[in-house]
Amino acid sequence: MRLYSYFRSSAAYRVRIALGLKGLSYDYLAVHLLKDGGQQLQPDFRRLSPDALVPVLEDDGHVLTQSLAIIEYLEETRPEPALLPATPAERARVRALALNIACDIHPLNNLRVLKYLKNPLGIDQQGRDEWYRHWVEGGLVALERMLAGSPATGLCCHGDQPTLADLCLVPQVYNARRLKANLDGMPTVVRIADHCAALPAFQAAHPDAQPDAE
Amino acid sequence: MRLYSYFRSSAAYRVRIALGLKGLSYDYLAVHLLKDGGQQLQPDFRRLSPDALVPVLEDDGHVLTQSLAIIEYLEETRPEPALLPATPAERARVRALALNIACDIHPLNNLRVLKYLKNPLGIDQQGRDEWYRHWVEGGLVALERMLAGSPATGLCCHGDQPTLADLCLVPQVYNARRLKANLDGMPTVVRIADHCAALPAFQAAHPDAQPDAE
Repeated sequence: MRLYSYFRSSAAYRVRIALGLKGLSYDYLAVHLLKDGGQQLQPDFRRLSPDALVPVLEDDGHVLTQSLAIIEYLEETRPEPALLPATPAERARVRALALNIACDIHPLNNLRVLKYLKNPLGIDQQGRDEWYRHWVEGGLVALERMLAGSPATGLCCHGDQPTLADLCLVPQVYNARRLKANLDGMPTVVRIADHCAALPAFQAAHPDAQPDAE
Repeated sequence: MRLYSYFRSSAAYRVRIALGLKGLSYDYLAVHLLKDGGQQLQPDFRRLSPDALVPVLEDDGHVLTQSLAIIEYLEETRPEPALLPATPAERARVRALALNIACDIHPLNNLRVLKYLKNPLGIDQQGRDEWYRHWVEGGLVALERMLAGSPATGLCCHGDQPTLADLCLVPQVYNARRLKANLDGMPTVVRIADHCAALPAFQAAHPDAQPDAE
């Protein structure tokens, strides 16, 4: 397997955790989102990923894009340990938590969006920081309500073993801390993220542990 | 089953199509995103949906949020007709196409984001229209490359029967046309969206056909 990754990409981070939890080894190919005007925009990479986004996973001749689709694929082809619970309703809860982050928090704050706010929109650093915090804090507060309000929440987002939801939560909280979002008032989010982040597969997937870390 | 929906919500539109394709009947509960300061923000609705987003599906005592999680749940509990293909790699392709829309196009352009651009950021109508078109046109052009470049593409995004990808594509193209995005240069996207939109389940799910249509 080959993973095209950028150390700080939240989406690549999710897939790295999944690969680690399932005990899968892979070649790491760094795609630097800032160097060379963005290596993800170069023709060779866009042949793999027409939307110019990391991660991309190559497995068994298949070229797979979109982190959640890649993780579902890994779950179907290497079911152990499971990253989704057993019943449809439980699986729906875990997927909803994951999508809440992947659709409604993360896309508003990734690099290309912050760049567009700067140019052409001319939003200054303070305005961009407020934008970032608005979406990430609002999104994580909603997530806190979902987690704190459910008896299904355990050491992890769903029970005591990591699921797809935790694979999305840990990179999002890492990102939020890096950009100095205020995580007061979301103790469940912080507790779960810290618990999971200490597990070996999460540590190995951490941005600082990647070959292209700066 | 009860569906909390807003006629113009792309995410609710996706779920309405899924329910229709699977032949499931449901009660329609309208949540008006603009009236009363946003009915989705009212306490009763936020108890169901802490992130204040439609759609919400109630089924068999379960309260389900996030359109793609709801559709995966319907697929697991009512497998026929299938909205995902048979093999893991094919399923990954369909999910990636769907997530491309659900994560990387739609969230940048929904109502709450356009409202934030207006206030507090002070972006005028022209700037907001350019923002909208930038993300939707760029995203759909990438999708065009994925679709036109693959032998797996048929009358629909994957083969000749609608899948999860088409459930996301049709609402996104409807939305793009409504906001006058330029769809030149994406003939495959337009061809597939028009083919699917003419199918009965897609027609029944159309915003104009909903009880709360204006």
